[in-house]
Amino acid sequence: MAHAIRFLAVDAILAAGEGHQGVPLGMAEIATVLYSRHLKFDPADPTWPDRDRVVLSNGHGSTLLYSLLHLTGYHHISLDAVKSFRELGSTCAGHPEYEPAAGIETTTGPLGQGIANALGMAIAEAHLNARFGDDLIDHRTWAFVGDGCLQEGVGQEVIQLAGHLKLGKLTFFWDDNAITDDGSTELSISENVAERFRVAGWHVVEIDGHDIEAVDAAIRAAKADPRPSMIACKTTIARGIPRLEGQRGGHSGKLFPDDRAAMAERFGWTGGSFDIPADIGADWRATGKPGAETRAAWRKRLAAAGNAVQDEFQRTISGILSEGAREAIHAYKAKAAAEEKADFSIATSGDIAAALYEALPDIMTACADLEAPTNHKRQLSAFTAKDRAGRYIHCGVREHAMGSLANGMAAHGGIIPLAVTYLPFSDYERPALRMAALMGLPVKFVFSHDSIGIGKNGPTHQPVEIIASLRAMPNMTVLRPCDAIEAAEAWEIALEHRTGPVALIFARQSLPALRRDGGAENRSARGAYVLQEAEGGPRRVTLISTGSEVQIAVEARVLLQAQGIPTAVVSMPCWSLFEAQDAAYRKAVLGEGTVRVAVEAAVKFGWERWIGEDGGFVGMTGFGASGPADALYRHFGITAEAVSEAARVRL
Amino acid sequence: MAHAIRFLAVDAILAAGEGHQGVPLGMAEIATVLYSRHLKFDPADPTWPDRDRVVLSNGHGSTLLYSLLHLTGYHHISLDAVKSFRELGSTCAGHPEYEPAAGIETTTGPLGQGIANALGMAIAEAHLNARFGDDLIDHRTWAFVGDGCLQEGVGQEVIQLAGHLKLGKLTFFWDDNAITDDGSTELSISENVAERFRVAGWHVVEIDGHDIEAVDAAIRAAKADPRPSMIACKTTIARGIPRLEGQRGGHSGKLFPDDRAAMAERFGWTGGSFDIPADIGADWRATGKPGAETRAAWRKRLAAAGNAVQDEFQRTISGILSEGAREAIHAYKAKAAAEEKADFSIATSGDIAAALYEALPDIMTACADLEAPTNHKRQLSAFTAKDRAGRYIHCGVREHAMGSLANGMAAHGGIIPLAVTYLPFSDYERPALRMAALMGLPVKFVFSHDSIGIGKNGPTHQPVEIIASLRAMPNMTVLRPCDAIEAAEAWEIALEHRTGPVALIFARQSLPALRRDGGAENRSARGAYVLQEAEGGPRRVTLISTGSEVQIAVEARVLLQAQGIPTAVVSMPCWSLFEAQDAAYRKAVLGEGTVRVAVEAAVKFGWERWIGEDGGFVGMTGFGASGPADALYRHFGITAEAVSEAARVRL
Repeated sequence: MAHAIRFLAVDAILAAGEGHQGVPLGMAEIATVLYSRHLKFDPADPTWPDRDRVVLSNGHGSTLLYSLLHLTGYHHISLDAVKSFRELGSTCAGHPEYEPAAGIETTTGPLGQGIANALGMAIAEAHLNARFGDDLIDHRTWAFVGDGCLQEGVGQEVIQLAGHLKLGKLTFFWDDNAITDDGSTELSISENVAERFRVAGWHVVEIDGHDIEAVDAAIRAAKADPRPSMIACKTTIARGIPRLEGQRGGHSGKLFPDDRAAMAERFGWTGGSFDIPADIGADWRATGKPGAETRAAWRKRLAAAGNAVQDEFQRTISGILSEGAREAIHAYKAKAAAEEKADFSIATSGDIAAALYEALPDIMTACADLEAPTNHKRQLSAFTAKDRAGRYIHCGVREHAMGSLANGMAAHGGIIPLAVTYLPFSDYERPALRMAALMGLPVKFVFSHDSIGIGKNGPTHQPVEIIASLRAMPNMTVLRPCDAIEAAEAWEIALEHRTGPVALIFARQSLPALRRDGGAENRSARGAYVLQEAEGGPRRVTLISTGSEVQIAVEARVLLQAQGIPTAVVSMPCWSLFEAQDAAYRKAVLGEGTVRVAVEAAVKFGWERWIGEDGGFVGMTGFGASGPADALYRHFGITAEAVSEAARVRL
Repeated sequence: MAHAIRFLAVDAILAAGEGHQGVPLGMAEIATVLYSRHLKFDPADPTWPDRDRVVLSNGHGSTLLYSLLHLTGYHHISLDAVKSFRELGSTCAGHPEYEPAAGIETTTGPLGQGIANALGMAIAEAHLNARFGDDLIDHRTWAFVGDGCLQEGVGQEVIQLAGHLKLGKLTFFWDDNAITDDGSTELSISENVAERFRVAGWHVVEIDGHDIEAVDAAIRAAKADPRPSMIACKTTIARGIPRLEGQRGGHSGKLFPDDRAAMAERFGWTGGSFDIPADIGADWRATGKPGAETRAAWRKRLAAAGNAVQDEFQRTISGILSEGAREAIHAYKAKAAAEEKADFSIATSGDIAAALYEALPDIMTACADLEAPTNHKRQLSAFTAKDRAGRYIHCGVREHAMGSLANGMAAHGGIIPLAVTYLPFSDYERPALRMAALMGLPVKFVFSHDSIGIGKNGPTHQPVEIIASLRAMPNMTVLRPCDAIEAAEAWEIALEHRTGPVALIFARQSLPALRRDGGAENRSARGAYVLQEAEGGPRRVTLISTGSEVQIAVEARVLLQAQGIPTAVVSMPCWSLFEAQDAAYRKAVLGEGTVRVAVEAAVKFGWERWIGEDGGFVGMTGFGASGPADALYRHFGITAEAVSEAARVRL
């Protein structure tokens, strides 16, 4: 059975002309034992909520996963799909790409992301288990892991955090083949990896990864231990190909038909290209049978749980908002309008989150050691080794793991994850942001401290380019609200957006109430709108702004109107939503033919899209500085007077 | 003496109205022992090349550093500077900002960066020691480290790598106060940190961080051990302030005059605000005396070393290019022009680097486990625990540490660091890129695999938004050359650019020779230039492009010229250099009044700056896909025909 993996993988790589044989040839026995004796899965229903999750963190070894999915009978991974490995349009892409219906639980390739996703999946499982009980949620998370995943910092963050949280249903199979792309791992690491896991509180078993019974015993031990388990599997990279096994070239060195022939001779394999002997194929297809029975029993338990439980379970797993979620936001908005609420921008977000925490039990909030200043814990208790019902994850100072585990929770389903930190530290989790955008995962990335407005902590803590860098990312919806009403609208957009991540960007400082309309209409949903129309004649100037600078635009409008210049203020909380509007709306909002000036406490990069080549821009031209916020705004010339002047000189 | 640190720090924080007292109050004894008994430094010459380096990795505790620099007599850190802590323009910024003349060796604040810089400094020292001998280079690197630095993934990468490289002159002081911003470290970590270091091959001493003699003994032990040392210092956060010590609020909770009074009573301190008793002040100023003597002896040794050694040492330390560096590039360029060299873009960069390696011994190259595919090792031997003369650092799969240690090498001086990986993985080191830009460090970040041109490895490995996100970063010079000649020019620009980092972006695929002029003129230095002028009449169309897509623009020009449409091609390897040109040049190149179309295999974000609101753009609108490169270019419509059509419809 293990050889069936090997030959499918090699045939796919030979057909594609490239690929990474090291992993499938090295981990074939491990995978075979997992799938044939332990994994809870049913190829007939790849998205069964209580299935075990499998993550191929060493994603370059994608043919291992495709072979397994094909052999066990996942319909999307047909033999034709495997044959088209790496061709445009194939489900069998170069690296696994998130497609739950095909059995691909997450996108992997950038190293370390997969195990961090697995951590998030294990957290999701533990929490949903606490919420819905063993009858409905009780499954394990397994990850195939290479040396690279464990060298990446995010991998180390995962080791620390998973050990700390004692996620006993999380198991890693470490492909200890002593080879990375550069050659021997001795080039770059000296530590005893197994010991490193033990220090972090993991259960570790060290085995020969080609010994079927050893793998089986190790998995049994893992299942019996309350700690997360790392099964350190001594393997031979590219096992079976005499020219490459145990060598640096085993990783992804080009394969030739002779290599396949040599491997066939070694293993006595008689099957031709893409040809699995019938008996072995039958054995593989039989591996799904126990899972099918388990799933049938699970369905009975769900049916027996009663309508209320069924409905709530299905709603949760499907990611459908609870009845009360929108109402909570609308109620907050009405209240904020009535109170003309002015507050620290990030605190308003916390207020909205707190209202949602009540209405939407699906939310879990992860934060990287900034509980107090980001203000999003509120009534949540902590998710800990002892309390799985907690919904707030103290991630420690580990932004990267935070972002990636949030992705894992979203990929698992049943959780609406928030990941909260300062905007300047978003760079630490940027690989996770990118993966969320690429996979289309509905993660809410919440950021505070979004500009020089943070003041005296200085330029390391003052984003100037980061808003632009997030706007540049495809499928990342970036929202930067200007007051409490827009904050509520941003949250409503974020909750309803299911096809990708959202970056909710808030200031640390207090923002005045600029909007007074607390009704159900979500004006931010069009990305930009006229906040204040020009008065006293046809509009001559359009001031465009976002977030904390909208108030400056409003002040500048007063100056311009006082000089008899009809001026409108456009609030533009979300560029991509505005881009998606029809041209007529965009032109009307932007005021075609008027002088356009944008103001944002960030770099100009990208703003020409809205102000044209000759439009005015008031903002930052470089990094910030350490000093009081008001002094910084004056120092960098981000003032109503400067905005007014930038408009006047263009009239 | 330790209390002098405490009171200066508290007085500065009280004056500023905010700050982080936890570190200076908790680490005062440690710092006092280091500076008074062990540190090799001379406040009269803060940039003395053979000084010990001190990094405050827990940079929020900046008043610890300012107090030390003031007390020991660094002129830039006057009492007035300390009094203006956190005010606009003060050298005593909220977090330490790189200013070697003031004794501030690196910018810190974003956690983990400092210790990674320290790792780079220790590598630089070890290599320069091998190159110039003990007489000229023989110093140590010390870092103050908080829990956050060790939770961040980059910190863990540093621990692994420093242990592996056995950097015996690197010492960390871990401020083991069991408190982070969220409260007890028990919220987020369970592992034994000391054991974690031991597993990685570090020498660890565990002491009471307030015990002067214990600190002294630990430092002695560290100096005697061939491994890097971690001194685990049990400390009390905010020690001395009864209301806050050992508490969560000790980190940065607001201080009041009563707190100072209570601390003064506790320690019997009689000095008023910013008033250091004369005898204690004298003791502090005396700490620099041994260093002054050591420096005098060092100067004698340098003088005795002979003119050739002196000149080379001074050239190296000053970062001045060797005589042969430019010549090597010009020779390469002439040869490439003569051969009409077409090759894999990243391999041409490797060729140029190889020529520079000969001519410029100051270069060290760090790479994150992509030696073969990035092709920049060439004749360099590895820098290892046994061979410090090696100039190639196998960083393992640790991009973040790679980038940050490159920053540390640059900050140390005497090294021109290259950091090499795939462009899609630049996100992993983005915090390091930002710090390099903020500090203005001349690090050369070399990237290959810059677009869908990488083909079958798929969208995880295909940057589409990353070029834009780098261009958005202030002070980051981004160069994307179109052929071997431009590659040489990009390298020349990179070498001569001393005030900030450079991102050199190369394709994996082969690029044809588009330029034939191999002379000394560096046309890329203006950022953009007319590669091919329009023919047959006044220019009607301007095609603008970068990197691997310039060849598509050239093909499109053929199509348009064939239709009688005079068309120019502009190659724009560097936006920021072009932005810096005078308006007349920019207008002439961009062809004011002509139809402008840009082509780049990346998102449009930012391109409106050059093509205007109504210009054409041919590129990516989302993430890439897995498939052969040529199929992807066709699939995403990045073709000469599409470019030609985008121009035609606008005529």
